[in-house]
Amino acid sequence: MSTEKKDIEEISPLLAAINSPADLRMLPIEQLPAVCDALRQYIIQNLSHNPGHFASSMGAVEITVALHYVFNTPDDHIVWDVGHQAYAHKILTGRRDAFPGQRKLGGISGFPNPMESEYDTFMAGHASNSISAALGMAIADKNTPGHENRKSVAVIGDASISGGLAFEGLNNVSNNPNNLLIILNDNDMSIDDNVGALHRYLSDLITSAPYNRMRNNLYQFFKEHGLITENIRGRVLRLNNSLKAFVSNHQNIFEGLNIRYFGPFDGHDVGRIITVLNEIKDMQGPRILHLRTTKGKGFPEAEKNPSKWHAPGLFDPNTGERLKKSADSEPLKWQEIFGKTLVELADADDRIMGITAGMLSGTSMSEMMAKYPKRTFDVGISEGHAVTFAGGLASAGKRPFVAIYSSFLQRAYDNIIHDVSIASLPVTFCIDRAGVVGEDGVTHHGLFDMAYLRCIPSMKIASPRNEATLRNLMYSSLKWEGPLAIRYPRGKAVNTDWHTPFEEITIGKGEQIVSTPGAKIAILAVGPSANDAVKAAAILNEKNIKTDVYDMIWIKPLDNEIMKKVPASYDAIVTLEDGTITGGFGSAVREWLDDNDSGIKVKKLGVPDKWVNHGSVAELKHLNGYDVDAIIEAVENLNCK
Amino acid sequence: MSTEKKDIEEISPLLAAINSPADLRMLPIEQLPAVCDALRQYIIQNLSHNPGHFASSMGAVEITVALHYVFNTPDDHIVWDVGHQAYAHKILTGRRDAFPGQRKLGGISGFPNPMESEYDTFMAGHASNSISAALGMAIADKNTPGHENRKSVAVIGDASISGGLAFEGLNNVSNNPNNLLIILNDNDMSIDDNVGALHRYLSDLITSAPYNRMRNNLYQFFKEHGLITENIRGRVLRLNNSLKAFVSNHQNIFEGLNIRYFGPFDGHDVGRIITVLNEIKDMQGPRILHLRTTKGKGFPEAEKNPSKWHAPGLFDPNTGERLKKSADSEPLKWQEIFGKTLVELADADDRIMGITAGMLSGTSMSEMMAKYPKRTFDVGISEGHAVTFAGGLASAGKRPFVAIYSSFLQRAYDNIIHDVSIASLPVTFCIDRAGVVGEDGVTHHGLFDMAYLRCIPSMKIASPRNEATLRNLMYSSLKWEGPLAIRYPRGKAVNTDWHTPFEEITIGKGEQIVSTPGAKIAILAVGPSANDAVKAAAILNEKNIKTDVYDMIWIKPLDNEIMKKVPASYDAIVTLEDGTITGGFGSAVREWLDDNDSGIKVKKLGVPDKWVNHGSVAELKHLNGYDVDAIIEAVENLNCK
Repeated sequence: MSTEKKDIEEISPLLAAINSPADLRMLPIEQLPAVCDALRQYIIQNLSHNPGHFASSMGAVEITVALHYVFNTPDDHIVWDVGHQAYAHKILTGRRDAFPGQRKLGGISGFPNPMESEYDTFMAGHASNSISAALGMAIADKNTPGHENRKSVAVIGDASISGGLAFEGLNNVSNNPNNLLIILNDNDMSIDDNVGALHRYLSDLITSAPYNRMRNNLYQFFKEHGLITENIRGRVLRLNNSLKAFVSNHQNIFEGLNIRYFGPFDGHDVGRIITVLNEIKDMQGPRILHLRTTKGKGFPEAEKNPSKWHAPGLFDPNTGERLKKSADSEPLKWQEIFGKTLVELADADDRIMGITAGMLSGTSMSEMMAKYPKRTFDVGISEGHAVTFAGGLASAGKRPFVAIYSSFLQRAYDNIIHDVSIASLPVTFCIDRAGVVGEDGVTHHGLFDMAYLRCIPSMKIASPRNEATLRNLMYSSLKWEGPLAIRYPRGKAVNTDWHTPFEEITIGKGEQIVSTPGAKIAILAVGPSANDAVKAAAILNEKNIKTDVYDMIWIKPLDNEIMKKVPASYDAIVTLEDGTITGGFGSAVREWLDDNDSGIKVKKLGVPDKWVNHGSVAELKHLNGYDVDAIIEAVENLNCK
Repeated sequence: MSTEKKDIEEISPLLAAINSPADLRMLPIEQLPAVCDALRQYIIQNLSHNPGHFASSMGAVEITVALHYVFNTPDDHIVWDVGHQAYAHKILTGRRDAFPGQRKLGGISGFPNPMESEYDTFMAGHASNSISAALGMAIADKNTPGHENRKSVAVIGDASISGGLAFEGLNNVSNNPNNLLIILNDNDMSIDDNVGALHRYLSDLITSAPYNRMRNNLYQFFKEHGLITENIRGRVLRLNNSLKAFVSNHQNIFEGLNIRYFGPFDGHDVGRIITVLNEIKDMQGPRILHLRTTKGKGFPEAEKNPSKWHAPGLFDPNTGERLKKSADSEPLKWQEIFGKTLVELADADDRIMGITAGMLSGTSMSEMMAKYPKRTFDVGISEGHAVTFAGGLASAGKRPFVAIYSSFLQRAYDNIIHDVSIASLPVTFCIDRAGVVGEDGVTHHGLFDMAYLRCIPSMKIASPRNEATLRNLMYSSLKWEGPLAIRYPRGKAVNTDWHTPFEEITIGKGEQIVSTPGAKIAILAVGPSANDAVKAAAILNEKNIKTDVYDMIWIKPLDNEIMKKVPASYDAIVTLEDGTITGGFGSAVREWLDDNDSGIKVKKLGVPDKWVNHGSVAELKHLNGYDVDAIIEAVENLNCK
């Protein structure tokens, strides 16, 4: 590291003295810009040395300070949507000194997490849930003696608010009496460029120059004539909206949904935000406050390219220089193999369409977008729509490839069942971030996909152990009917010479990859874990514990030939998967054996039935008992020699 | 049956001669009202003798006729949302003579189904998917040489359009060039009363009297001055919207989302609908046509009480008298036990809140709503919001009971994982319609819930075989931490003396319910299937095939005592569940045995890995091999005496 990390006393004695929001609330308002500045410096110092989500948190510093200053947290509830923006919140709520360990094994989480702090009122990580959750809290408080005056605030970005769940929340906030406040943190950005009509609508709302002119003139006029008192401030704010509707010919969508709308205001003017919050916080009924912010605010490199600075990895806190680059000699990421292969296939087959849901760069669908923009669709944070839309494309003759992270695909579960699988439409699901993902932690691991997809009739599920198999699965899927799921993990693939020629492969056909004379034990693995099994088998065979390894490739359907051979040829089976054991691949293996009357011993390795927190991928595999060492230990414990 | 069913020739020779939409399109427009009338009579005659979804189809007759008259189906795509309204569509598209067998085993489906007809362009049954699916078709056609002029039409009701998926679709329709037409079939109704801000917004749009007056005046003015030509008709329609925004101070939400809006028009004036469709069908870009209809139109009893006539069962086609009533001597439905028990618990514990998602009467959450309207929330077709909202309530100290049908709960899968289970919030999921549901068919069976919930850490899952256990599970859940799922089927429960006193039960404790000296076989069952196991065991024991039965009650966690005892005491285990075997309860039993080194033979009964179509519940259990006869056969085939 070229730069020594500064500690908190060096950055700001002011921040060093704030141990809770109660401390913050004792400061005079004039000191708050300095607190904001210190928070930014502390985030820069730490994130440059310990990677995390950078640009979102930098943009939400003033909002965070203002909310904890105005509201009586933790009695009042602040619900952070997604949680990419919550570092300042963590630092202000008793976790300043734990912050350097964030996202590390045993350290604090990168996202708000109610098990970590009473200030983290709700689980965050998946987008668009804050309105529904905060509404629940608001209505609970309304119905709890002594809690009636507690406030609930949902803080949601302009990308998250376009998700269907957020709309369902918005559509329901005015059904019952409550005083929910929604803060729309509008930075004109999701992780990638924002998409969708609502986004354009928000932009229009802001850039309506005639409106802004008239609003200012009118406000000045009222002020000059002494018409603005504390009493009528709220009404004036409200008048602005009618005025805006009148001038811009854009009646406010939120007002159309019976939510009082205030804004847009500058989300980096902490004093102004506090003034507005104080004006509207005791109003009855649901309200939305629209704040404009800049993602990456306060770090020029990040302001210039907020997408690249969403989660930048290590960097120089002074220059913004990125400190860790991939060496040419390292394998590409799995997602890159997917992205490049998709383009290659699309070159040859114009039925191919690419779809993702706000994960354009994260899935490398960006490669398809660059070359075939008309055949590529980033639908924003709308996983359900992405899948149903793909179903529509497929039913009109196209071959859609849907790339979504495993844990986010949970959002589209019914769409996969109802809109794709019942009619057995040829949609290829490319499930990225399958298995443990590391530092993003409990909300982001992709542990359930094998279990939740395996029970769907007509679904086929495969997981490649190397680039060639991923490419061949994608290539061959064009010749198959019905839905196919291909799961692969976060991070680097395994070979540098990934660009192998396409070969057609067979559905439900695995391969034996370690063959040892006299072997008593068969490891049946899927996905890159098969490579760990090979390493384990080499050591076991040296120890004279004779072990064979099969890369099953297919979770569904299983390879009937291998499955018939295995109970006849070995004393025990070890199954290995990077996912939950409960109902997963190993469970499928056992179901097959039951159906075929085999009582052979089966030991299942994978994630046990518990939540997995953050840490490195290697640490998490070790802790959950399915890294190379754990495989060796499990096989040794079988006592089959 | 008091009334002889009329056949098609007697009802209408005109309709009898229409064998496809091509025949319909040859008729002069003046004959279409007679076609509509004939369709209604044919629906009344058939539905009165063979139950199905009545009121929605009655309301959509003119829309259906107009769409098939104007569009060149099946080359043009009509996507029906939900499909409750699709009977006229089925009758006009070659299934008139098959219609009397609808929803019966081997007959046509009650919902559009692409496997049944090329006119059924997309799977229907679950709400809110039509916009996304039709958008996929529209964009596929735009990108397919020779298909560029094909049209895509989504027909969606005012309840379905409030779902998050529909909003995601709306938010994305203007992202790419396409000419999607959305028909909003607005009957001011879902199955129950409609809820939500969007609903109120639509009502406002319609009842804006000043707007309607001014629109008429203006249109007359244009007409009188010869300003309305074919050319500018579209523009005049469009002008209406601006006008509407101006007068009503409600700018159109759809226009805010970049979708051209036309309407509202009378959805029962078939000539008018055709005129408007012809005016707008060739326009470029996405459009929405808002039609007002009356649910149950043409059958006075149904118009008066459309909720009750959503799916009325048998009735007299002349008088509207309902022909089948429950006898007092029959058990209540499972849903009624739930509804009454919830109220009883809520009387004593004011932390209890009830939540459903557009299934107020279907789940009997209506009982809670009647007594505790402030503690009961029907959030409309928004399963995801329902669950996250419940998470919010729970995290602020409440005890929410969420009642949703099993197959619709798939919509909330990620919400269950991310928003409830990770933080282990005390939400009780009361999963109605779990297992095969009968005539509603493939989209409605609740087969996957055990598999998709079982893999979630911290989730507990139980299924009662009788009323007392359902009541005791609900009662005891108030003393437990963390999420709980209770699954029970559609239809009648088992006892008439259901109102048993509450008893606290133990998590993960099953019971032996048949004990036979010398038994070699143990049937482990969950849910009401345990009662079938008891019947089967009685017959088997008579045949001297000694069989015991355990009602496990709990799918997760399993009863450790029973699980330890069983492999030590019997030669084989039969598992029995009303759900998919793949990853389900039987699979859980086998996982437990594997973990405890038992190779005992396990035979799993339940739904195999294939789609289940419609038919009676008894027929479907028989066909899928888990009714009483199938249990007997399976045990006999084990050859353990």
